[in-house]
Amino acid sequence: MRVKVSRKAHFNAAHRLYRPDWSAAQNQEVFGLCNNPNYHGHNYELIVSVTGEIDPVTGYVMDMKVLKDLIKSEVEEAFDHKNLNVEVHEFKTLNPTAENIAVVIFDKLKPHLDATMDLEVVLYETPRNYVTYSG
Amino acid sequence: MRVKVSRKAHFNAAHRLYRPDWSAAQNQEVFGLCNNPNYHGHNYELIVSVTGEIDPVTGYVMDMKVLKDLIKSEVEEAFDHKNLNVEVHEFKTLNPTAENIAVVIFDKLKPHLDATMDLEVVLYETPRNYVTYSG
Amino acid sequence: MRVKVSRKAHFNAAHRLYRPDWSAAQNQEVFGLCNNPNYHGHNYELIVSVTGEIDPVTGYVMDMKVLKDLIKSEVEEAFDHKNLNVEVHEFKTLNPTAENIAVVIFDKLKPHLDATMDLEVVLYETPRNYVTYSG
Amino acid sequence: MRVKVSRKAHFNAAHRLYRPDWSAAQNQEVFGLCNNPNYHGHNYELIVSVTGEIDPVTGYVMDMKVLKDLIKSEVEEAFDHKNLNVEVHEFKTLNPTAENIAVVIFDKLKPHLDATMDLEVVLYETPRNYVTYSG
Amino acid sequence: MRVKVSRKAHFNAAHRLYRPDWSAAQNQEVFGLCNNPNYHGHNYELIVSVTGEIDPVTGYVMDMKVLKDLIKSEVEEAFDHKNLNVEVHEFKTLNPTAENIAVVIFDKLKPHLDATMDLEVVLYETPRNYVTYSG
Amino acid sequence: MRVKVSRKAHFNAAHRLYRPDWSAAQNQEVFGLCNNPNYHGHNYELIVSVTGEIDPVTGYVMDMKVLKDLIKSEVEEAFDHKNLNVEVHEFKTLNPTAENIAVVIFDKLKPHLDATMDLEVVLYETPRNYVTYSG
Repeated sequence: MRVKVSRKAHFNAAHRLYRPDWSAAQNQEVFGLCNNPNYHGHNYELIVSVTGEIDPVTGYVMDMKVLKDLIKSEVEEAFDHKNLNVEVHEFKTLNPTAENIAVVIFDKLKPHLDATMDLEVVLYETPRNYVTYSG
Repeated sequence: MRVKVSRKAHFNAAHRLYRPDWSAAQNQEVFGLCNNPNYHGHNYELIVSVTGEIDPVTGYVMDMKVLKDLIKSEVEEAFDHKNLNVEVHEFKTLNPTAENIAVVIFDKLKPHLDATMDLEVVLYETPRNYVTYSG
Repeated sequence: MRVKVSRKAHFNAAHRLYRPDWSAAQNQEVFGLCNNPNYHGHNYELIVSVTGEIDPVTGYVMDMKVLKDLIKSEVEEAFDHKNLNVEVHEFKTLNPTAENIAVVIFDKLKPHLDATMDLEVVLYETPRNYVTYSG
Repeated sequence: MRVKVSRKAHFNAAHRLYRPDWSAAQNQEVFGLCNNPNYHGHNYELIVSVTGEIDPVTGYVMDMKVLKDLIKSEVEEAFDHKNLNVEVHEFKTLNPTAENIAVVIFDKLKPHLDATMDLEVVLYETPRNYVTYSG
Repeated sequence: MRVKVSRKAHFNAAHRLYRPDWSAAQNQEVFGLCNNPNYHGHNYELIVSVTGEIDPVTGYVMDMKVLKDLIKSEVEEAFDHKNLNVEVHEFKTLNPTAENIAVVIFDKLKPHLDATMDLEVVLYETPRNYVTYSG
Repeated sequence: MRVKVSRKAHFNAAHRLYRPDWSAAQNQEVFGLCNNPNYHGHNYELIVSVTGEIDPVTGYVMDMKVLKDLIKSEVEEAFDHKNLNVEVHEFKTLNPTAENIAVVIFDKLKPHLDATMDLEVVLYETPRNYVTYSG
């Protein structure tokens, strides 16, 4: 009886999409508005899902309070109200696209979970654009 | 051409998380606020999805009115405006966590569906916490 | 330049609608399913709005962190994961309908606000039913 | 590192469910209100998801602007503010159920995507009814 | 203690915006896509709000079940799965814009309410466009 | 028959709350996380409402396409994917709080509307915080 448990969270951040090894013109052509050198930002909505067996003792796959606190310490405290390019070390050499942010979040959370559990990260960059990564 | 058809429903209920074979202190430590002996409650939002072949005669996988009525008779009438611990027999010996409620709903609906169809149950306990079970 | 600033919050609670001075039959006739003596419950969604002048120094009508903390201390800590009838003193002699809960929340918050500010409370009992009270 | 990127879109359309080779009574029995010969309509909400490798150069699976424009030219311009039965050639001989519309959208989009990418179409006919098709 | 109680409902319908006394070209210029002679349609979301005194006996402004049933008999049964232009008599000589539909709904509901109560109708034609009418 | 017509829009932007005439410590104390000198950002959701008489000729208060285009030219093109502090001249000497942004949007839109019409601006800075301004 494997069940997936999901928890929503969110953080606000500024970012800019660009490659420092490209010319301004090339960055503009590929990344358009998202390349604004003065940054823009988003309310990122995050859904973290963990799949595992129901513990017959508690009826939980995982205590949602533990998952909530894990998201808070690993993601919210690291990303919320931050400039991703400037202040979050993973994005100093990695373009902070929604895809890459989802992978970084996955990699930060995975080591804290029981190895028998599956992890999925869904990240909304806007209410109309989102990405899903599960390793 | 297998397609998944999904129908949303909801029910309001009271519950309490605890194990009668544990001390009050142990229940409090594991279940925290959810262990309140006077109960608390939720607006449970439910998404039931059935996956099967499109019937070439009707263009339906399944008549959504049939699915809606099945959810009503099997889930809403059994759970809505009820105290899950006290009034729903499945939870007299089973802790009504979101995970266990989803499994019980799955087990109640599955026998009513064609054996070639797959079933998935998503249950939101709050807008921020939900679980998914597909057998 | 009066602006209304709004903050969403939520709490989960159990309740029951009934009058102790009525017979069971009369309570059943008037309150129907909501009269279940074993209680049922809701995820109450709350929107608290404060209207006032923008402070020209800060650009704020009111620091939203202050409003968030006020809602937490006055409403969430008093109502969340509680049985309203049994554990919240205001409802020991007052039927916990959405209307009455909204008035109680208004009366709890109002004394903490500057007298020049207007207050509005919107309370969703379910995603389809809600009430609005502004004194 | 395969990631799923999702884009929401919408279109409004009229339709009617029926089979021309059936009697009015038979159509009424099977399709009920949806068989109204004068048509009814929906705000269809569409989620198109493409799964592929993250391009290490851009950090994108696919430029969301390209996906947005593809949905616009293939789906929105073909279906929006249209009568599906009368004006959209795919439904001249195919019942425009949500299931069939999702398959038609899938078949229109798939040839425009890189063959290594997976496609999923989610179509909400109403906020409570939706279908998912992934080939 | 006047409180506003609100109830959400919905209906699906086809419509077309045009004036029979105008040329096709004039209708096209003013109503654009909405003038499609083959009709298009919407999932109309409706919020009906009634403002009145809390009845000290029940704690209700109005029994929401009564309001729900009133919306069902006056609005849903008259409009749901209908072609507004062809099948709803109010729109035989009145253009079924969102504004006019809201006024018609208001006029249908108002006589059923206590004269001391205020009525407000909010009608979403799409998730991005809506209108509000309160007499 | 005055009706309020409402249109939703959105824009993404970076901003920072601070006063250049205050010390870093004072800015930190008053604006907290929002004072990050490297900026953070939001998906601002905007609802613009115009109240006026229904034009008996068209059934419109105002053509929603005109309102949509006005919001696009006055707000979205000026603010979307921008750094409000650095790139939007109104905020060069005005703190871009949600309150102030709403007032600026109001002042940009008002001159384009018929003088008999009322205007209301609702601006969501996050899904949980929003402001309303109507002049």
